[in-house]
Amino acid sequence: MKGIFITFEGPDGSGKTTQLHKAAEKLRQMGYEVLESREPGGTELAEKVRSLVLDASLPLAAKTEVLLYLAARSEHVEKVLRPALATGKIILCDRFCDSTLVYQGLVKGLSKEQLAELRRLNAYACDELIPDLTLLLDGRTEVLAERRSLRGVSDRYEDKGLEFQRQVRTGFCTLAELEPQRIRVINAEQSADKVAADVLQVIRAVLPE
Amino acid sequence: MKGIFITFEGPDGSGKTTQLHKAAEKLRQMGYEVLESREPGGTELAEKVRSLVLDASLPLAAKTEVLLYLAARSEHVEKVLRPALATGKIILCDRFCDSTLVYQGLVKGLSKEQLAELRRLNAYACDELIPDLTLLLDGRTEVLAERRSLRGVSDRYEDKGLEFQRQVRTGFCTLAELEPQRIRVINAEQSADKVAADVLQVIRAVLPE
Repeated sequence: MKGIFITFEGPDGSGKTTQLHKAAEKLRQMGYEVLESREPGGTELAEKVRSLVLDASLPLAAKTEVLLYLAARSEHVEKVLRPALATGKIILCDRFCDSTLVYQGLVKGLSKEQLAELRRLNAYACDELIPDLTLLLDGRTEVLAERRSLRGVSDRYEDKGLEFQRQVRTGFCTLAELEPQRIRVINAEQSADKVAADVLQVIRAVLPE
Repeated sequence: MKGIFITFEGPDGSGKTTQLHKAAEKLRQMGYEVLESREPGGTELAEKVRSLVLDASLPLAAKTEVLLYLAARSEHVEKVLRPALATGKIILCDRFCDSTLVYQGLVKGLSKEQLAELRRLNAYACDELIPDLTLLLDGRTEVLAERRSLRGVSDRYEDKGLEFQRQVRTGFCTLAELEPQRIRVINAEQSADKVAADVLQVIRAVLPE
């Protein structure tokens, strides 16, 4: 019995979290066992690390930020994701390695060598676990920004402005072009119901019979 | 102006912390500017990470432990050690990369490839900063154990028993054999005053005129 590991990626405001819940509900109705999780987080320690890293009052050295995210990830992989996969569950995870490559890599303007190093660090932390499928919720930055302001949520990233979010979008699209088999782009500007339908269609293709 | 970076390493109970303070006092009397620090720690965030990683009630995945120590280290290097070296200070630091290689590497029985990976991770976190001098306080495990019990302190490592502490000692000695130039072994079984004299003698050799 081997589960399926699906990640949701995209800029803030792209609707990842909402769509992940919708997909989980639908899959449960279809009779699948589903685990919803998120990064950084998913374990007691990882949630503590999450609060350290997202607390904007603490300025972090760039490498420290990377290493904290990866510490949370390695805990999540070993304690939560691997065991869930071993019992045949479908995992829906809000952010994973691709977010690290975008936020701590592409957006920071790292060199090719530094990006390769970041990929190696990612591989170490996630113990070579690669998602079976990644859904990239993509939309124009201005449209997503309006959603963010409606939500009224603010954190380290969301405070950084439109130009930053544009770079994030470009980063995710770059990764999707490199791995079109794994990373499927969903138009996040559509109505929530239409996005949900697209998400489910792509997920169905990787489900066991 | 380039400072000097000196680390103190050794098993628990070897007297590192006491000897570090003694050396700092002496160096200050000699007119040097001295910064005392410790790992994990040295910054507000790093101290928070320290409390996470040393809290024995939270069982940590092995890679998570490594990554948390390294997160604290990268913060320490960038925010504290590099700036202090840039202003010509003498840094005395309680534990550094060698402790990671021993506690998260040699003692865990990692393969040659895994140890090489750990060295790479260390180099990433400390941004290639290598101590000018490392003092290894070494003594027979039983002798050091008696000191620990007299101190009455307990943490994740100190709870692990004599066999573990023996492996730690062997680990440090292995590193010292690989880098005899940098890592100088001090006999920690001597009286505190004699150890302090030996420590100071070795430090004097790397001081600027």
